[in-house]
Amino acid sequence: MPDLSNVKALVFDVFGTVVDWRSSLIADFTAWSAKRGVSGDWAGLVDAWRQAYKPSMDEVRKNPAAGFKMLDMLHRASLEKLVAQFGIKGLNDDDLDYMTKGWHRLKPWPDVVAGLTRLKTKFIIGTLSNGNVGLLTRMAKNAGLPWDLVMSAELFEHYKPDREAYLGAARLLNLPPEGVMLVAAHNDDLRAARSFGLKTGFVPRPTEYGPLQKKDFKADVEWDVMGADFGEIADRLGC
Amino acid sequence: MPDLSNVKALVFDVFGTVVDWRSSLIADFTAWSAKRGVSGDWAGLVDAWRQAYKPSMDEVRKNPAAGFKMLDMLHRASLEKLVAQFGIKGLNDDDLDYMTKGWHRLKPWPDVVAGLTRLKTKFIIGTLSNGNVGLLTRMAKNAGLPWDLVMSAELFEHYKPDREAYLGAARLLNLPPEGVMLVAAHNDDLRAARSFGLKTGFVPRPTEYGPLQKKDFKADVEWDVMGADFGEIADRLGC
Repeated sequence: MPDLSNVKALVFDVFGTVVDWRSSLIADFTAWSAKRGVSGDWAGLVDAWRQAYKPSMDEVRKNPAAGFKMLDMLHRASLEKLVAQFGIKGLNDDDLDYMTKGWHRLKPWPDVVAGLTRLKTKFIIGTLSNGNVGLLTRMAKNAGLPWDLVMSAELFEHYKPDREAYLGAARLLNLPPEGVMLVAAHNDDLRAARSFGLKTGFVPRPTEYGPLQKKDFKADVEWDVMGADFGEIADRLGC
Repeated sequence: MPDLSNVKALVFDVFGTVVDWRSSLIADFTAWSAKRGVSGDWAGLVDAWRQAYKPSMDEVRKNPAAGFKMLDMLHRASLEKLVAQFGIKGLNDDDLDYMTKGWHRLKPWPDVVAGLTRLKTKFIIGTLSNGNVGLLTRMAKNAGLPWDLVMSAELFEHYKPDREAYLGAARLLNLPPEGVMLVAAHNDDLRAARSFGLKTGFVPRPTEYGPLQKKDFKADVEWDVMGADFGEIADRLGC
């Protein structure tokens, strides 16, 4: 393992790495829609919603003059299109709000809370997510995620993988880039983090995209720390 | 008590309201200097340091074109002048760094951790402090302060009492101003918060400035919630 003695803070990708967005949203909408008396292909909608995620951020990234838009707003705009596309009838504004806030109610993978609790004893732990601060804060409360601080692309007005997000996190922590490790289940995110000087930790989340998962089954290259889950990351980091 | 049913988040002033900066720093420097083999009027230096606090921020506030400077930097610059002024000899760069980071090691008032723990069950709780993010994050870890999120003037590049700090906190929380209550031991801070539409909570900290305390022994006006300490604030808010 490389020398990680300068690492003082671990920052975490959230969607997919910390929380199981796909299963959480499908279960949430399935239960809610039965009570609400609406029906739809919730798995299909959730998968399509997530596929709209990157393009919607890329639009913000490519056109900074139009101003930063937080993820709740991008989620809502994508949802409105998808509801029509999937032919889901009878949803009012409150329903669309409820569904958009489904991203605030995501459940963590089973190893997460115990792993973070161990890592927190030795490191500053925080988010470095494209989710907005309000979303991440409410998710942490709902899910019992023991962050020391919530950092978001929103604070830097730059979505990952823009450099401003990674280096902004190090700056807010008053640490050099090599004092911060990004932990993520996505090789692309880690590649960006490494290119800007951060340390890198990988956990696979091979069921994140369900049957649509095509990549990130394993580390593409040797990341600084790798483990099957957050517990193994804690083992490797001596927590 | 006014209608507070829309309040979803409590944001806290930190220096003086949450932590007892004066006693903490004097005790820290007294113990450290004995081991370090330096001597000085630590109470005098700490009081003078705090007196330099507002003017140093006002300089940043009045000259935004010069760029925002985080509080650690202002503290360090003030300290260098004061060490000379107080005739304290033999301090090297590491010593000045240690002393500046004394603000990261401040101790909470005795009611704080239990009170915040109760308040956290019903509200989002966070900081809204002129301290920088790194300072507040390390302080919270050292002192066991269970914040849901750390918000700082640094995020808005505006020190309190600039409106950007108060309204920026509400914006990051995705709440209207009246959905956020500032809790503070300082009438001035609450006056600013109220003028921008936030709700207000007051606790007196009559020993904050030691023998130099001249104001804030009590509420100057009727704030929305008032209590002798964080426990009473939790009582009033039904936690």
